[in-house]
Amino acid sequence: MPKKVVLAYSGGLDTSFCIPYLKEGGFEVTTVTADTGGFSDSELKTISQRSKELGATQHITVDLKEQVYQRFVSYVIKGNVLRGQAYPLCVGAERGIQAEALVRVAQEVGAQAVAHGCTGAGNDQVRFDISIKSLAGNLQIIAPIRELDLSREEEVRRLAEWGFDFPSVKKKYSVNQGILGTTIGGGETHDSWMKIPEEAWVITKSPEASGAKPAEITIKWEAGMPVELDGVTFSNKDSNSHELLVRLNERGGALGVGRGIHIGDTVLGIKGRIAFEAPGAMILIAAHRELEKLVLTKWQMQVKDQAASTYGMLLHEGQYFNPVMRDLEALMDSSQSMVSGETLVRLEHGQVSVVGVRSRHSLMDARATYGEGAKLWTGAQAEGFCLISGVQSMLAGGRSTTARS
Amino acid sequence: MPKKVVLAYSGGLDTSFCIPYLKEGGFEVTTVTADTGGFSDSELKTISQRSKELGATQHITVDLKEQVYQRFVSYVIKGNVLRGQAYPLCVGAERGIQAEALVRVAQEVGAQAVAHGCTGAGNDQVRFDISIKSLAGNLQIIAPIRELDLSREEEVRRLAEWGFDFPSVKKKYSVNQGILGTTIGGGETHDSWMKIPEEAWVITKSPEASGAKPAEITIKWEAGMPVELDGVTFSNKDSNSHELLVRLNERGGALGVGRGIHIGDTVLGIKGRIAFEAPGAMILIAAHRELEKLVLTKWQMQVKDQAASTYGMLLHEGQYFNPVMRDLEALMDSSQSMVSGETLVRLEHGQVSVVGVRSRHSLMDARATYGEGAKLWTGAQAEGFCLISGVQSMLAGGRSTTARS
Amino acid sequence: MPKKVVLAYSGGLDTSFCIPYLKEGGFEVTTVTADTGGFSDSELKTISQRSKELGATQHITVDLKEQVYQRFVSYVIKGNVLRGQAYPLCVGAERGIQAEALVRVAQEVGAQAVAHGCTGAGNDQVRFDISIKSLAGNLQIIAPIRELDLSREEEVRRLAEWGFDFPSVKKKYSVNQGILGTTIGGGETHDSWMKIPEEAWVITKSPEASGAKPAEITIKWEAGMPVELDGVTFSNKDSNSHELLVRLNERGGALGVGRGIHIGDTVLGIKGRIAFEAPGAMILIAAHRELEKLVLTKWQMQVKDQAASTYGMLLHEGQYFNPVMRDLEALMDSSQSMVSGETLVRLEHGQVSVVGVRSRHSLMDARATYGEGAKLWTGAQAEGFCLISGVQSMLAGGRSTTARS
Amino acid sequence: MPKKVVLAYSGGLDTSFCIPYLKEGGFEVTTVTADTGGFSDSELKTISQRSKELGATQHITVDLKEQVYQRFVSYVIKGNVLRGQAYPLCVGAERGIQAEALVRVAQEVGAQAVAHGCTGAGNDQVRFDISIKSLAGNLQIIAPIRELDLSREEEVRRLAEWGFDFPSVKKKYSVNQGILGTTIGGGETHDSWMKIPEEAWVITKSPEASGAKPAEITIKWEAGMPVELDGVTFSNKDSNSHELLVRLNERGGALGVGRGIHIGDTVLGIKGRIAFEAPGAMILIAAHRELEKLVLTKWQMQVKDQAASTYGMLLHEGQYFNPVMRDLEALMDSSQSMVSGETLVRLEHGQVSVVGVRSRHSLMDARATYGEGAKLWTGAQAEGFCLISGVQSMLAGGRSTTARS
Repeated sequence: MPKKVVLAYSGGLDTSFCIPYLKEGGFEVTTVTADTGGFSDSELKTISQRSKELGATQHITVDLKEQVYQRFVSYVIKGNVLRGQAYPLCVGAERGIQAEALVRVAQEVGAQAVAHGCTGAGNDQVRFDISIKSLAGNLQIIAPIRELDLSREEEVRRLAEWGFDFPSVKKKYSVNQGILGTTIGGGETHDSWMKIPEEAWVITKSPEASGAKPAEITIKWEAGMPVELDGVTFSNKDSNSHELLVRLNERGGALGVGRGIHIGDTVLGIKGRIAFEAPGAMILIAAHRELEKLVLTKWQMQVKDQAASTYGMLLHEGQYFNPVMRDLEALMDSSQSMVSGETLVRLEHGQVSVVGVRSRHSLMDARATYGEGAKLWTGAQAEGFCLISGVQSMLAGGRSTTARS
Repeated sequence: MPKKVVLAYSGGLDTSFCIPYLKEGGFEVTTVTADTGGFSDSELKTISQRSKELGATQHITVDLKEQVYQRFVSYVIKGNVLRGQAYPLCVGAERGIQAEALVRVAQEVGAQAVAHGCTGAGNDQVRFDISIKSLAGNLQIIAPIRELDLSREEEVRRLAEWGFDFPSVKKKYSVNQGILGTTIGGGETHDSWMKIPEEAWVITKSPEASGAKPAEITIKWEAGMPVELDGVTFSNKDSNSHELLVRLNERGGALGVGRGIHIGDTVLGIKGRIAFEAPGAMILIAAHRELEKLVLTKWQMQVKDQAASTYGMLLHEGQYFNPVMRDLEALMDSSQSMVSGETLVRLEHGQVSVVGVRSRHSLMDARATYGEGAKLWTGAQAEGFCLISGVQSMLAGGRSTTARS
Repeated sequence: MPKKVVLAYSGGLDTSFCIPYLKEGGFEVTTVTADTGGFSDSELKTISQRSKELGATQHITVDLKEQVYQRFVSYVIKGNVLRGQAYPLCVGAERGIQAEALVRVAQEVGAQAVAHGCTGAGNDQVRFDISIKSLAGNLQIIAPIRELDLSREEEVRRLAEWGFDFPSVKKKYSVNQGILGTTIGGGETHDSWMKIPEEAWVITKSPEASGAKPAEITIKWEAGMPVELDGVTFSNKDSNSHELLVRLNERGGALGVGRGIHIGDTVLGIKGRIAFEAPGAMILIAAHRELEKLVLTKWQMQVKDQAASTYGMLLHEGQYFNPVMRDLEALMDSSQSMVSGETLVRLEHGQVSVVGVRSRHSLMDARATYGEGAKLWTGAQAEGFCLISGVQSMLAGGRSTTARS
Repeated sequence: MPKKVVLAYSGGLDTSFCIPYLKEGGFEVTTVTADTGGFSDSELKTISQRSKELGATQHITVDLKEQVYQRFVSYVIKGNVLRGQAYPLCVGAERGIQAEALVRVAQEVGAQAVAHGCTGAGNDQVRFDISIKSLAGNLQIIAPIRELDLSREEEVRRLAEWGFDFPSVKKKYSVNQGILGTTIGGGETHDSWMKIPEEAWVITKSPEASGAKPAEITIKWEAGMPVELDGVTFSNKDSNSHELLVRLNERGGALGVGRGIHIGDTVLGIKGRIAFEAPGAMILIAAHRELEKLVLTKWQMQVKDQAASTYGMLLHEGQYFNPVMRDLEALMDSSQSMVSGETLVRLEHGQVSVVGVRSRHSLMDARATYGEGAKLWTGAQAEGFCLISGVQSMLAGGRSTTARS
């Protein structure tokens, strides 16, 4: 009986090469395309056909968009996660959820191995391998491209030898797309001093070109998640709640929102520069953050920011299945119980401004207006507060003038 | 011999009221205007005259702009400090440096007390009082407005009784201005849902109105501080290095850059909403942050971000003279030794984009290009790295399937 | 109709003074003794009688021991909370739970005010006031001792004037006792250089005097809480689960375990030195911590330690009812799902040693024994891991030799 | 011309095997014994002879004890670093300094490679490899034992084939010793439930056996480092300042101080259990920590604890040469400027108690005695402080009763 392998399949050159390669290695190949937001229906159909043409026994398409949204995009939003104050982890983090889908199919078809097309250079191999091992420690992992270290030309040549005529168009940019955003690598991204040319961007217009007049959008929130966009409900319970994010990607992108460039640390220690587009994430994080300022206590924000920063780091580094992630999610979920209300966001030539927020849980109190006379305490009480707040610095200060000498 | 008091004097109604009030209390009053960026020469002259008219014995103007820049604005930049991912502490933090100037004058003139015009409602009283007590524990602090809890109308009336005709124009907005930025309070800021109208803004054009075509500016950095703007040097050693920030405020403001709205936690626990304008800080922080991504290790950024967040919190809360601030500054300074290079920033309809960075200390390595075949390790070595990086999650994962049941 | 006040009553001089004082002020006084572990039955009876003698309308005793244990002692254990690596927050933190009981009684009897006997010097006033205001913002708080700033002698004199003969024995030490431990203040504690004499300690023998031969105890844990002590079950569901801690206090105390001296920062900024005794907490925290090392991932410990340190700080500072505490508890609870197993603890002349731990969730794996040949990876894979783990430091190091010159 | 290699040589079986093995591979071998505290003079002499007998061209002994003490033991003390509240990183961390010595010798003799005898199982390979690569990216690293994965029996057999009669006594425990302490692995340490038998310990008596009457020692501190032990000076400037630690190891060990068991996370993800003995470190950390409580502000301790925890983690994981370590050291150094004074420590049956501390920089103030009437503020001022400290929790609390419903 032939061994079975389940291959993560995108339809691209690398993973296409893997099908006949794995067959040659004696495997019966099941291909899985885990859709996390980058594919049209016709693309998914083409991918399925190509899989069969290249000799896969079976092709499976899994729609993971809602899962990706519920299981970690939700925490990117709740945590206001922007790596390096800029990057909302557009793509890559979904490798964990994709690996889970691979493992599930492997268990269903009784496979001994799973395979992916990652090279040995980047983050995705780490994310795939850690996740697979976390979920099924005894599944073998095969990464042909990493093992063989082939160039694209060699892959095309070997495919031709096997009788497959694979179009060898090397694109200038390598584009990754998901519901959370798009990353663009290659070309100018390799030189930290070079600007990204207009033609490189995929889902956004330039602020200049967006031209149109500014737009204002209203987002309604329940427990830290957006549930309504300009009056249209996207229930968090619903299986299509991620559509709100998709809708915002479209609206924001058309208005020039969400472009960025980020130099990040890969899990393997080298620096990588990417261009990215994340209109929806940029809008949601900005709005969510401002709503939180209205309803969370100072300490809640302080503690949650810290937790979210760690969450972002570990998510980026492929540790989605480390139990610490569940602990951090528990903290974030707890913190969101009051994060309900409305946010008014202005989009203008690519800029996102949160111009208004309101909530029935607001901590802005009519009796204590900042900058006005406060009615929650008297001047004498304030004076006592100021005095005692400074006691330790006073003691330390009094000391330093004499003690250091 | 009469007691002496040194009063922080801005020329406004509150502090003007204090002069005759303190005199009435038997004090000989020296007024000090600590210029941290909000005053023109003619304004400073008017303030000086008004002080004398109201009966001060002596008026002193102290230019603190460079000190403010060197002593904490520099750490706001080095730390990429944005409170709540948004607010670069435009004003308020300078109260510490101002208090120091007050104390110095008090010691020179042999005063027994210092006075300020803060109310009992806001942060500034805390910052003043803690700083004064840290620097001179036995100086008495007098805060007449806080003590008396007077309305503006009452202040005007009492000034009139003393024979002073103070113009009682209640402005809609209370504006604070310094080299780091401008804050605007009052009016719509009191309702978290209300938009800030165009006329409220002080030093910035709207993105819409900025109209003009996008600009690109080049900033050169040495050890974490900007030293050159489009070819013009602002040496960090020089007593006018802060002029670089002033220049950027002008250029950025004209291009619609740097507006924001922030809901912050006051030291006293209530929420305060302000509009702010900080074109220069927004540009410098964005550029500095991206340059750091090129030259710092992952752990340096992780650790420094944490330190800077604490620094921002304590700076906001008036703890500038707590020795912990020196400890955090030591860490930040150490981290900046390699943060030298150039940044190219694009300003476009109010948006700040850092489109290029370069440094002779860059950690982007030609032998290890992200997304390409890496030449620093082999595929097999990468596979070993991935495997072992996942060992703990694998052990934890393997356990949970059996152990939880 | 007379106003009503509910007074936190311990039977001591300060709170005894308050009863006639509040009556004189026109209040009908209800006294509440919130028992968090420091009282014997006969003491509680004496307190109740004294309350009536002094003129209280009604006296209520509330047993809060189990609540204190479940609601925050449990998190001191789960978080391994030792302030300054030493102090398990023996007393003081329960003020929050006590305040809640006060408020509840106030609501039941329809009181307009609550009162406590704290001075203006220490932490407890802060904890009481913050908690009361958090739970019932419009209840008036009366703190007669703080307001009047009376000496003990004056209190005794005024009580005598009112016709009460209160025994004016000033004890050398001020002792606070609860289920979590005992604190001892006064006398030698006021001089940081002075040793605490043997007679000052309350619930522990000295290591020397404990003499007896070492003991070993076995504790069983479920989800981070102790549930069995040497074979005797103390179910976490049970209303007497705190008895396990009480039992350990007795056993440990007899063996010289749990003494310490701690210099802490009071909420008001001054330093305070106390002696404390916490045999049970010391044993439980040590055992729990070692069990965690067996079953939590590295990142779980890192993150939880951080959270617990913040929890300890805020608990100490009276912020028990700040919602951030619930967020931190959610994280801690999540982290404990696997913290089940057994711990073997040796008590010897005052020393606590955790000599063995085991769990069905152990992450020590037979295939990967530390110090032996590992069977989870090959030498070549380890070499790849080492190489790539050092890539960033290598790039940074290679740079520094050339770049700094 | 033969290639040259510099081998880290301990005289044990693994590194002894490496000498003829590397020679067989065409290398001229220089051996280096980096003495970080585990060797007697006669042992060093034996090691040197053995190296020559086994065919090394040259043997070099480097005394690194003072360097280890100054360059990171000092920060373990300044940071009060106890991994998992227990383990002061006894051994392992010195691999970085040892690697530096190897690299220096390699550069002096013109070697192309360095070699070490680590297996593929443990932490030390990671520490050696990362450090070597950080310091000299193009030196080849050879780790024969890791590559060949040989058993001890095979090593002995191959040595015999080469004509060397190596004594094959497999000891029950693997002991590592340095100035910071001793670790003991093997035997019972592999089973988390097994007790460590008395004969396993190396430098400490048991609390029981220590018998003798308690001792008190006085340590004097300057800027965070111990400089005097019971009146004998060990100047920090001196090249033998580490002798203070050695002396304390002896005294403490004789009194049963410093034993522990720790389950740690190896860098490679598995759990490892070790017994350790660190009498000197335990005494110094306890004393230093208590002195700090007297002179540092609350925020200094909070911030430094956090920094030290990260420092300990990264030191353990071999990142000594990551520039972040210099940043953390800068913070710690800054924080220590006032940590001067005296500590009185009682050692009793294995227990360490810090019974007194004093400093001319003490923040305990005669005007503000904890538990007594405070003279730095009035009761009314304290009341104002309490009120305002609770404002945010009050607002949050007032909300929750209505809002959640």
